[in-house]
Amino acid sequence: MRSVHRVSARAGIVVTGTEVLTGRIQDRNGPWLADQLLELGVELAHITICGDRPQDIAAQLRFLAAEGVDLIVTSGGLGPTADDLTVATVAEFCGRELVLDEAMEERIAAILRRLMGDRPGVDFDAVRAANRKQALVPVGAEVLEPVGTAPGVIVGGSPTVLVLPGPPRELQAMWPAALATEAVQQAISGRTRYRQETVRMFGLAESGLAETLREAQGSIPGFDALEITTCLRRGELEIVTRYEPDGADAYRELLALLRERHATALYSEDGSTVDEQVAALLAGRWIATAESCTAGLLAARLADIPGCSDYFLGGAITYSNEAKAELLNVDPVLIAEYGAVSEPVAESMVTGALHHFGADTAVAISGIAGPGGGTPDKPVGTVCFAVRAGSVAITRTLRLPGNRSDIRERATTVAMHLLRRALAGVDD
Amino acid sequence: MRSVHRVSARAGIVVTGTEVLTGRIQDRNGPWLADQLLELGVELAHITICGDRPQDIAAQLRFLAAEGVDLIVTSGGLGPTADDLTVATVAEFCGRELVLDEAMEERIAAILRRLMGDRPGVDFDAVRAANRKQALVPVGAEVLEPVGTAPGVIVGGSPTVLVLPGPPRELQAMWPAALATEAVQQAISGRTRYRQETVRMFGLAESGLAETLREAQGSIPGFDALEITTCLRRGELEIVTRYEPDGADAYRELLALLRERHATALYSEDGSTVDEQVAALLAGRWIATAESCTAGLLAARLADIPGCSDYFLGGAITYSNEAKAELLNVDPVLIAEYGAVSEPVAESMVTGALHHFGADTAVAISGIAGPGGGTPDKPVGTVCFAVRAGSVAITRTLRLPGNRSDIRERATTVAMHLLRRALAGVDD
Repeated sequence: MRSVHRVSARAGIVVTGTEVLTGRIQDRNGPWLADQLLELGVELAHITICGDRPQDIAAQLRFLAAEGVDLIVTSGGLGPTADDLTVATVAEFCGRELVLDEAMEERIAAILRRLMGDRPGVDFDAVRAANRKQALVPVGAEVLEPVGTAPGVIVGGSPTVLVLPGPPRELQAMWPAALATEAVQQAISGRTRYRQETVRMFGLAESGLAETLREAQGSIPGFDALEITTCLRRGELEIVTRYEPDGADAYRELLALLRERHATALYSEDGSTVDEQVAALLAGRWIATAESCTAGLLAARLADIPGCSDYFLGGAITYSNEAKAELLNVDPVLIAEYGAVSEPVAESMVTGALHHFGADTAVAISGIAGPGGGTPDKPVGTVCFAVRAGSVAITRTLRLPGNRSDIRERATTVAMHLLRRALAGVDD
Repeated sequence: MRSVHRVSARAGIVVTGTEVLTGRIQDRNGPWLADQLLELGVELAHITICGDRPQDIAAQLRFLAAEGVDLIVTSGGLGPTADDLTVATVAEFCGRELVLDEAMEERIAAILRRLMGDRPGVDFDAVRAANRKQALVPVGAEVLEPVGTAPGVIVGGSPTVLVLPGPPRELQAMWPAALATEAVQQAISGRTRYRQETVRMFGLAESGLAETLREAQGSIPGFDALEITTCLRRGELEIVTRYEPDGADAYRELLALLRERHATALYSEDGSTVDEQVAALLAGRWIATAESCTAGLLAARLADIPGCSDYFLGGAITYSNEAKAELLNVDPVLIAEYGAVSEPVAESMVTGALHHFGADTAVAISGIAGPGGGTPDKPVGTVCFAVRAGSVAITRTLRLPGNRSDIRERATTVAMHLLRRALAGVDD
């Protein structure tokens, strides 16, 4: 990354929760908030994660304030249990007393009554008492209507602190209201509008890209005005470039160079993912899947796109050899001769899927995800793919790295890319 | 969380990488390292995430040092590209010069030669130049053998800084060697051995648990010596309790109270997950799945367990009505009469799965994941489940909250719990 910012509006994110700190749940709020802030043109400097201990939360608030951020967004610690102490800690950090917001207490009680209404045997008063602390807010703070049972809180100042609930669904639903407040708008008033472009490649090593970027640095005027981040994930390279408007020419030249050097690997210039591209290419077609080692991951990924019922018929998960024969008409003799993980069996699985589902497009995956089942000939990680899209057919055998879960995930991604190529009519 | 620690050895984690900070990839290293440190009895105070900007990395190192941690573990920023600056930043923070470790440079070159060996057309010298910076290490630092191409680095002191690579596979593989070093052992020498117990519940609201914990606080002697964290995730409640050895009696009493108050919801006292319990219960059985809205998520989750081929036959993903008829013999008249999302159709899917796969156990899921497809009668989130395990049969219709992806994930979890109950012979 090359830094070219005139620092404008800076923010920090404080994620609280012992369950997040200790890794028992993945934090989804930090990344989501980061994305929102970046889109707004707010510079994100730090995300910090701590447990439910007030002194650690306070230390992080002080750290971010000392780093000069304009806005601190916290997530979590607004629940009814005794370990939820974010509001009290923020109040102390901002030098404000906590007071009971009685109107809010009534609204929370109404929400609880509705939630509890159909559960006989629940002691409503006890539940209400547990939730009373959620109506305690710092004096003078702005309060955001609860999405679950916890209200959000905004304390204006330098920095302004925005306190949001931990459950991602509540936090995300509350965000627009938070953003609309005078206090938050003022805190981020210095934001810059950047352009951001994303390019995706598949099948290129990171050092190959590093070499091209070094070349670009030597040959493209104004290259240093581009802030480039590269990221290797699931075998895909993502290249994100941010620049202020006057960097547009340099970006155009960079893109031309990437196209020239990595024509085969570069598959997306507009940030679209392979999932989105495949979904668009499937319009007017009918697809079915036939999976062994991935056992549904490919089908689930296709079905992740809303509206997929316009082209997705279904799939057969044939983990056992008997299931391959019964559901996909794979000839047991073929399995005996070549093994279940072989190109002829993958091709036969595709044919069976086309036939049984009445599809015109199909993908088959058969592989050894491990940890057991490998042989010297076909070690763990060996995966066979077969794709048919109309008259285009692709068959491949790859050896994928990693553990069971890496191999299954990577195989799913490879299948998506083979499918994209077949649908686009590239049958190399 | 109630804090009762005699603070022993404290650590902080610095996760670097603009792609992580900006949410384009989920950080997996923070949680994994947190888990390792906690198991060692090292108190984890903070995880901080920043981009690849040296001044932000330096600020986080200073923050953690000021908070008095004994050990800082960093992840990321060791790659060949120009934005990877962690080692240089740590060297400056520790007041050490960077020097080229020539022996290490040779070893990295040997690794690259092996990696590149089978790729014609790659300019080896250019790649080697790109990777040379990975052999620059702080004077006097201990160097850990690369797993990918980047060596790890340990700089002893107060705090000791351990620099690890970003790819989770490399970081995890390097951890044992890092832990074995004198410098790290010395940094964590004050660690305490805690006991940690995990209880899991399904189908209980968080405020119900809060009420029980308040009761426990009043009635159980020594309750305050227990450090309890509760976490609601995918409809499951996880309760983790850490305590020093003399808290064992209080924990026993707490567990007895949880059993008494929440007998139906409590399904795990030893931390085992529903996935592990189902895998154990499936020994000697053969299972098949029949999925519509989850489209393979349940099958993929069953197949996530190594060795699942001993009981998992496969599954049918029948997204279209035609596929339900063709693969599972669901009578189209049944669909016309009750709708595809109905208990009779789910039961028919189970029967079809048992028959086609020759299974003795089967699960069917049919639901409306949205965003489209809901009706006043069957709104988005309506999901029908049918389970058969030998002579036990369970059928259920639930209305699940959230967006498309929440509903599909939650439906998969509900199916796992219904399967567990059926296998355990609870047919309520």
